Amino acid sequence: MRVGNLPGIRRLPIYLNLLRAMREDGIEHASAAALADLAGLVASVVRKDLEMTGASGTTGRGFCVAALIADIESFLGWDNPNDAFLVGAGNLGAALLGHRDLRSHGVNFVAAFDTDPAKVGLTIHGVEVLPVEKMVSLGQRMHVRMGIICAPDESAQAAADLLVDSGITRIWSFAPTILKVPKGVTVQREDLSAGLAELLVKSMGFGT
Amino acid sequence: MRVGNLPGIRRLPIYLNLLRAMREDGIEHASAAALADLAGLVASVVRKDLEMTGASGTTGRGFCVAALIADIESFLGWDNPNDAFLVGAGNLGAALLGHRDLRSHGVNFVAAFDTDPAKVGLTIHGVEVLPVEKMVSLGQRMHVRMGIICAPDESAQAAADLLVDSGITRIWSFAPTILKVPKGVTVQREDLSAGLAELLVKSMGFGT
Repeated sequence: MRVGNLPGIRRLPIYLNLLRAMREDGIEHASAAALADLAGLVASVVRKDLEMTGASGTTGRGFCVAALIADIESFLGWDNPNDAFLVGAGNLGAALLGHRDLRSHGVNFVAAFDTDPAKVGLTIHGVEVLPVEKMVSLGQRMHVRMGIICAPDESAQAAADLLVDSGITRIWSFAPTILKVPKGVTVQREDLSAGLAELLVKSMGFGT
Repeated sequence: MRVGNLPGIRRLPIYLNLLRAMREDGIEHASAAALADLAGLVASVVRKDLEMTGASGTTGRGFCVAALIADIESFLGWDNPNDAFLVGAGNLGAALLGHRDLRSHGVNFVAAFDTDPAKVGLTIHGVEVLPVEKMVSLGQRMHVRMGIICAPDESAQAAADLLVDSGITRIWSFAPTILKVPKGVTVQREDLSAGLAELLVKSMGFGT
């Protein structure tokens, strides 16, 4: 069992992006204070978040950029490519297939699936759209472990059932439906409305 | 100053969707336990989340569905339509323009903007794509208050600057960049990588 805090885990990609940009600029060391400044956070929060990953800095010099990138990537499992299926090749699906960040975070799209005959056969950002009937055999043969659901709400549960039958144990869903999955399958539900709720309440003067 | 907890605020849209489905089915009362069961949460969490909105239930009968919908919508500011601009009419932008939930949560897309001449003049889900040069005058004239950034990372800050010049005070950004905005402007940054991080760490056996 790993130990960590959820808001901190969600912030790790921010640090990773900043550190990768530093590495490109030839910067070799970075302090928690410098990262905090760039991320708009306080240094103590950054320090605590980075501690989760097992990274350790040196007094005075801060963290070694290359080592910290490796520690964060390893903590998140982004150092291993995650073969993934995508279900629902509409606008949102296409946006995810072409999302630079997902690819740089180890997501490797093996295939996309759609029930719409007009979409089957298309190649979107280099990924072929196949009929859903092919999912289970392909997933089992290729040992795909991650599935991303961009299907409409009413077909999200059917998509999840097919993904589970394909052997997938990690489902990332962009449909509002609360999915029912067997034990051992992890679901992350991405609710766009949640971000909208947060924005509006914060802008009305939200305080804790 | 409103008081509330952020994870609870992010859960309110879940309850709202469940309650709207109940209303459609003619259900007039709902208990926190029933909502918790449908949402896959525990009743005490649901009760605490709903308390934030000022809603009150009756012992035995639970909450009046119609009143609870109104309380949540009012707390989130979703009972007033929020006129919005969208910047960046690519796949993600198109997905948001066509997102049922955003419209049902009071987002009213006034116009979309893009720098790509091939996109300008298109109508996507009923919303016209205009050249970015038209943003400031239109925003000021129509008193638009919300801006959604779906532009690529490298042009996200330029998009934010234009939105601020247009009079917009609420920015919802899907670009990874940390945006710099003047005081009085609220930014909600939607980081898709954060969800991916959460999924992977949870599936590796994350615990708090």
